[in-house]
Amino acid sequence: MKSGPIKSGKDQQDESPVHCGTGKTRLYVEASLHEGARFEADKDQAHYLLHVLRLKPGARVLLFNGRDGEWAAELAELSKRACAFHVVGQTRPHQLLPDVWLLFAPVKRARLDFIAQKATEMGACVIRPVLTRRTIVSRVNDERLEANVVEAAEQCGLVALPQVGEAVALDKLLDRWSEEAPGRRILFCDEGAEPGGALDALTALAQAGARETPWAVLIGPEGGFAPEERARLKAMPGTLALSLGPRILRADTAAIAALSAFQLVLGDWRR
Amino acid sequence: MKSGPIKSGKDQQDESPVHCGTGKTRLYVEASLHEGARFEADKDQAHYLLHVLRLKPGARVLLFNGRDGEWAAELAELSKRACAFHVVGQTRPHQLLPDVWLLFAPVKRARLDFIAQKATEMGACVIRPVLTRRTIVSRVNDERLEANVVEAAEQCGLVALPQVGEAVALDKLLDRWSEEAPGRRILFCDEGAEPGGALDALTALAQAGARETPWAVLIGPEGGFAPEERARLKAMPGTLALSLGPRILRADTAAIAALSAFQLVLGDWRR
Repeated sequence: MKSGPIKSGKDQQDESPVHCGTGKTRLYVEASLHEGARFEADKDQAHYLLHVLRLKPGARVLLFNGRDGEWAAELAELSKRACAFHVVGQTRPHQLLPDVWLLFAPVKRARLDFIAQKATEMGACVIRPVLTRRTIVSRVNDERLEANVVEAAEQCGLVALPQVGEAVALDKLLDRWSEEAPGRRILFCDEGAEPGGALDALTALAQAGARETPWAVLIGPEGGFAPEERARLKAMPGTLALSLGPRILRADTAAIAALSAFQLVLGDWRR
Repeated sequence: MKSGPIKSGKDQQDESPVHCGTGKTRLYVEASLHEGARFEADKDQAHYLLHVLRLKPGARVLLFNGRDGEWAAELAELSKRACAFHVVGQTRPHQLLPDVWLLFAPVKRARLDFIAQKATEMGACVIRPVLTRRTIVSRVNDERLEANVVEAAEQCGLVALPQVGEAVALDKLLDRWSEEAPGRRILFCDEGAEPGGALDALTALAQAGARETPWAVLIGPEGGFAPEERARLKAMPGTLALSLGPRILRADTAAIAALSAFQLVLGDWRR
């Protein structure tokens, strides 16, 4: 995963990093993190540290790579444009994300950035664009999705971050579901589902042991699923058609709302 | 509420209206809506209808005012720059929103736009900025909040829309809570609350009849509530400190996540 030159679409007014209360500079890196590790910062990070934040040699930052937890590192200046990290000690261990994927019909750019950021905060372990019959957007910039994931993870103090999956047609994905995602159940958000039954349906699943199985939350396009898609999803074993209440939600809102409901009842908002 | 010249901060790439599946042009108006009503469109709406959508006289649009439900109206051209609506019949009755307020510490502009839009979609009946001790943003543009509310309501097919309350200091608001909001309970999102207990706490409230009482969901600033604020909130009768899971959420994400949890268990996602 590269956090380099791809812009994440962060609002230009919002350039100063938001740290969600952590108050420290946190950066995603690709290198392995362990005590004594030394490696060079990539060009953009060096620019950010030396020329935007104007940190001096010896300044401490926090690093994570999605595998090794979070580590404190000291900055060493190599030149006017380059710096290195010297990893001094672990500040937090790695944490596993709940085993829930977010599959979503892509929307226009700003809202797509938003879905990637929010799904990261909400703890999805995979996020993947899915092209349904009524999906209007057909091209998705994976690197931009990844940059948004990294930004959200950096700013919100996460040590684990979701994997960004390649865009795929829903029909193709379902054709090979049993090989690609054996045993993974699908919770699909369906404007046609019985309204009012979401909590009871999720609670019944939790009571039947569904917190132990892997899940995928699937959000359709703004025009909804096609009837054939809905029928196919309903016919698959273990799927749940979930109503997100009486108001029609935009796709990006639906993604957060569905992940909230999932984490609250089936995911890691519970002990 | 005015939907006129204030820009809502909608992404410039996203100019074409998103209709969340309704597929029809919907506009918020201030006039009373009843069969046979005729009134002139405001200048911006006339421009949008005549020059952006290029609608012709006789074209049908949907109108709502937050009080009278949704009505079909025919367009009548008055001049090159002005048009009128002729209301022909009701398409949907008015619907009450659940009695839940969203009180939130304001954040920077793009995220503030976002909170107003998303709180509207999530069915809050009042949205109001609350300045806490650690809130950095101190000026809030009420008209911009309202424009975002109107935009979300227009695009997502809502007939009711939240009232935007004036920004207020949290301490002042709590001083006069019993007069301003008699009997209204506060659900405040608290990073310090016991993690893992959200569903049990909400379910216990629902079982104890709390679905019948008015609520306010309160989201703190990115630095969290000050200890005195947290202590004061906890000491108020009927408040609940809610944990939104093990990951720190940005304020805008927290607003949607909290409203989702509320609507799922205590609000109108249930029968």
